[in-house]
Amino acid sequence: MSAELLDLSIAELATLLRDRKASPVEVTHAALDRIAKVDARLNSFITVTAEGALAAARRAEEEIGAGRWRGPLHGVPIGLKDLFDTAGVVTTNGSRIFKGVVPAVDAVVTTRLKQAGAVVVGKNNMHEFAFGSTTNNPHHGTCRNAWNPDHIPGGSSGGSGAAVAARLCFMSMGSDTGGSIRSPACLNGIVGHKPTYGLVSRRGVFPLSWSLDHAGPLARTVRDAALTLQVIAGHDPGDPASASLAIPDYAAGLEGGVRGLRVGVPREYFFERATEEVESHVRAAIRTLEGLGATIVEVSLPHVELAATAGMAIISVEAADIHREWIRTRPDDYGADVRPRLQAGALFSGVEYTRAQRIRALVQQEFREAMTRADVLAMPNNAIPAPRIDQTTIPVRGKDVWVMALMPSLTIPHNLTGAPALTVPCGFAASGLPVGLQIVGRPFEDATVLRVGHAYEQATEWHRHRPAM
Amino acid sequence: MSAELLDLSIAELATLLRDRKASPVEVTHAALDRIAKVDARLNSFITVTAEGALAAARRAEEEIGAGRWRGPLHGVPIGLKDLFDTAGVVTTNGSRIFKGVVPAVDAVVTTRLKQAGAVVVGKNNMHEFAFGSTTNNPHHGTCRNAWNPDHIPGGSSGGSGAAVAARLCFMSMGSDTGGSIRSPACLNGIVGHKPTYGLVSRRGVFPLSWSLDHAGPLARTVRDAALTLQVIAGHDPGDPASASLAIPDYAAGLEGGVRGLRVGVPREYFFERATEEVESHVRAAIRTLEGLGATIVEVSLPHVELAATAGMAIISVEAADIHREWIRTRPDDYGADVRPRLQAGALFSGVEYTRAQRIRALVQQEFREAMTRADVLAMPNNAIPAPRIDQTTIPVRGKDVWVMALMPSLTIPHNLTGAPALTVPCGFAASGLPVGLQIVGRPFEDATVLRVGHAYEQATEWHRHRPAM
Repeated sequence: MSAELLDLSIAELATLLRDRKASPVEVTHAALDRIAKVDARLNSFITVTAEGALAAARRAEEEIGAGRWRGPLHGVPIGLKDLFDTAGVVTTNGSRIFKGVVPAVDAVVTTRLKQAGAVVVGKNNMHEFAFGSTTNNPHHGTCRNAWNPDHIPGGSSGGSGAAVAARLCFMSMGSDTGGSIRSPACLNGIVGHKPTYGLVSRRGVFPLSWSLDHAGPLARTVRDAALTLQVIAGHDPGDPASASLAIPDYAAGLEGGVRGLRVGVPREYFFERATEEVESHVRAAIRTLEGLGATIVEVSLPHVELAATAGMAIISVEAADIHREWIRTRPDDYGADVRPRLQAGALFSGVEYTRAQRIRALVQQEFREAMTRADVLAMPNNAIPAPRIDQTTIPVRGKDVWVMALMPSLTIPHNLTGAPALTVPCGFAASGLPVGLQIVGRPFEDATVLRVGHAYEQATEWHRHRPAM
Repeated sequence: MSAELLDLSIAELATLLRDRKASPVEVTHAALDRIAKVDARLNSFITVTAEGALAAARRAEEEIGAGRWRGPLHGVPIGLKDLFDTAGVVTTNGSRIFKGVVPAVDAVVTTRLKQAGAVVVGKNNMHEFAFGSTTNNPHHGTCRNAWNPDHIPGGSSGGSGAAVAARLCFMSMGSDTGGSIRSPACLNGIVGHKPTYGLVSRRGVFPLSWSLDHAGPLARTVRDAALTLQVIAGHDPGDPASASLAIPDYAAGLEGGVRGLRVGVPREYFFERATEEVESHVRAAIRTLEGLGATIVEVSLPHVELAATAGMAIISVEAADIHREWIRTRPDDYGADVRPRLQAGALFSGVEYTRAQRIRALVQQEFREAMTRADVLAMPNNAIPAPRIDQTTIPVRGKDVWVMALMPSLTIPHNLTGAPALTVPCGFAASGLPVGLQIVGRPFEDATVLRVGHAYEQATEWHRHRPAM
C-alpha cells in the first residue's frame, strides 16, 4: 500500500489523509524510502530532510487525528527547489558559494506551505544560481531525466521536475525566469505552472532577475498545481512586485470546461522553432481542445522572435547586479558556464539594457492585442523533447541549433509579459520522451489557464503515463 | 469684444462659438494679434502659424455656420509644444538639429485635436529636446514667466505654460517626463495635467524617455483640461505603451464634489522639500478640500526620496539611447547643458540602470499601498515659486539648493508610477508668483483627479487671477 500512495495525485491522497485512510507518517516514509532507492541515479535532491519531514508528518498525523485537517496539502510530502529559503536547513541556491549556508528564516512560500501542513522532504537540485547551463551542476552533480537517465531533466528547476515525475514527492516548488518551471516540467512529462508575475511572493527565493523571476509549482496534475497555487498566492508587502488582489478558488474553477473559449494559436515563431514531431503533437492537442468546444483563432505576435534576445540581456544584467561582489572577489567559486555569463552581464551598457526593455514593451503590447482576440494562447512548451546530456547542438528542421539557446526560446516570451503560463503533457516523441502543450493567459487570469489545462488533461489522460524506474 | 474673448475659458468660448455669438476667425485674429503684441517679450512661441490658423478658423466658421459643430474645441486657438509633429510645419523639438525640419505626418495627438476642430496658432518654445536646463534655450531664446519676465516659466513645456497664462492661446499640449507639464503650469499659475501613462498616444511626439514620457494639456481651468483629455485620450496601436480602455466622459464627471473622498497627505518628503511659504499655501488648500467634505488621511511613502535620483538615471540612459548617433557625430549642435547630460547617460552601465528600475518598482509598490488608504494624494507641485532666470541655487529652509535638481523633485515620483497628476493654482507667494497644489490619483482614475481639482478650483477661484501684461 505505502509505495502505491506515491502514485496518487495530491487531490487523491488528500482525501485519504483527511479521512484517516492513509497516514502522513506512512506516506512520508514511502517518499523517503523511494528517494533512498532511486535518487542515487536521478540526483534530484541536494538535501534530504528526513528527520524534519518525519517530525512534520507526525505533527500532521496528530492534528488530523484531532480533527484539525488544514486542507489538501496537510501531510503531503513535497520538495523545494534549493533556492527557497528553509529555516534551519542548508539552502545552496545550486552554488558552491552557499554550500553549508543555513537561512534563519523561511521564504514566504516555504512558510505558507508549512502552514498548510505540507511536509518538506528535501531541497531539489537545480542549475547553479538558476543560471547554469542545460546539463551539469559542477557543485552538486548532474541531475537526470526521470524518463531516461541519459537525457537532461531541463532546468533550472531540473531536480523538481525529475523528483515529481519519479514520484519522490507530490509537488516541488520551482522558479521561472525564462522557462525554469515549465521546461523541466515539460521534459519530465508533468505539469508546470508559472503564475502571473506578482501573484506569488519571491521573498526568500534567491533572485536571478528581479523583473522576470516567478515562483510556482511543478506537479503531476493540473488540479495539484491549482491546490498549491491556492496556498502560495497572495499579497506580500516584502516583494516589491507583489500585487494586492482577491485570490479566487482555483480548484473550484477547474471544471468549467472550454466550450466557447477562444484559443489563440500564434502564427509566428512558436511552431516553426519546434521540431516537426513536437509541432504535430501540439497541433493534435489543439484539435482536442477544439473537439471539447473551444474556438480556435489565429493570432499574430510579429516581434516575438526578439523576445529571447531581450530576455537574455535583461537576465544577464540583473544577475550581474546581484552577483557583482562575488564575481569580483570569488570568481573561482562559480562554474565555468555561469562565470563568463555573469562577467558578460556586467559589460552591458544602460543603453543596451534599455533597448532590451523597449523590445519587452513591444512584445507586451502585441501580447495584449492578441489577448483581445483570444482568451488563452496554445503553443509548444519546448521546441524539442529532452536532449541527451552530452548534446550541445541538436538538429531542428534540418539545421543544427545550440541547445542552450533553444531551451528557453518558447517559454521566455511569457516571462517578458508576466502572463500566467502552464505546461501540460500532450504525448510522447518516438524516443519515448514527453512533449508538452503550453497554455498562456491574460495577467491574473491563472484560473482560466488552469481550467483549459485541466479540461485537456481529463480528456487525454497523458498524466497517467509514468516513467518506469 | 475680440480681445476679451481671450479671457474666456474653452468651455465659455465654446458656447459662444457653437451659438455663433463669436466667430472662430475673430478669436483666432485676436490670439494672433496678442501674440504679435506680447510674445516678443515672452518668447513663448518658436513658430507662429498665422496662415494655417486662419485657414483652419475659416473652415471651422463654415462648418459651424452649416450646423456641423464638432464639439468644445471647434474653432478654439491652441498651441503645441514644439515636439508634437505637425505636417507641413517645422517641428524643432527645441533643438538646433531639427531647425527647419518639416514632418510629413501629424502626431496622433495633433491629428485628434485637428479633427476636433482646434485651430493651431503655433508651436511653443521648450527646453532643448525637453532635456535642457531650467532657464535658457540656446537655439530658440529664453522664454519668460507670464507673471514676471525676470523669472523662468519652468519647463520643459515653458512656452506652453507662459502662452496659456498670458492668454495667447486657450490650451497648449505639453509633454511630461519628470514634471514638464506640471512645473510650467504651476509656475505660470495655470492647470497642468499629466494623464495616466498609456492613456494618451505619444506617436509623433519626440521622445525623451520612452518609459517616463507622458503627453497632456496645459490649460486655464480644470474643465478645459478635461475637455482636451476627452479629445486626446484613447488607444493607439502605434505607441507600445498605449492602453486599450473605455474612455469615460471626463467633463460629465467634474461636478461630483469631494464629499467622502479620502485625500492622502504624504508624511515624508513632499512638504519638507518645499519652502515654508509653499507648504503653508498647500496645507491651506488641503484644509479647503476638507471643508468641502473630503476626509484627510496621512499616508507614508518611505522610499520616495530615492525617486528623483532613479528617475534622472532612467531619463539619462533612455535619452542617451535616442541621441546615440547625433551626440557622437554632431556634439556641437547640442547646447552646453544638454550635451554633457547625454554623454553622461551613455556611460551608465546596465547594472546601474537596473538598480534605478528596482527603486522604481519599490516606489510603485509603496504608492499602490498608499492608494489603498486614499483615493487621491495632495501635495505641493513645485518646492518653490518660479526662480529668477539668473538663479542657479535658491535657499529652501535655510539651505541653498541647486534649482535644476529642485524643479522636478516633487513631480518626478509620479512619472515613475505613471499615475495621473494634476496641478491647480492654490495661491500666490509674497513675490506675486503663483503656487500650485498637486493632486495625484490611481492609474486610469484621471476622472477622480480632475473632479478633485475642479472642486478646489470652483471653491477658490484662483484661476480668475491673471498676469498683468
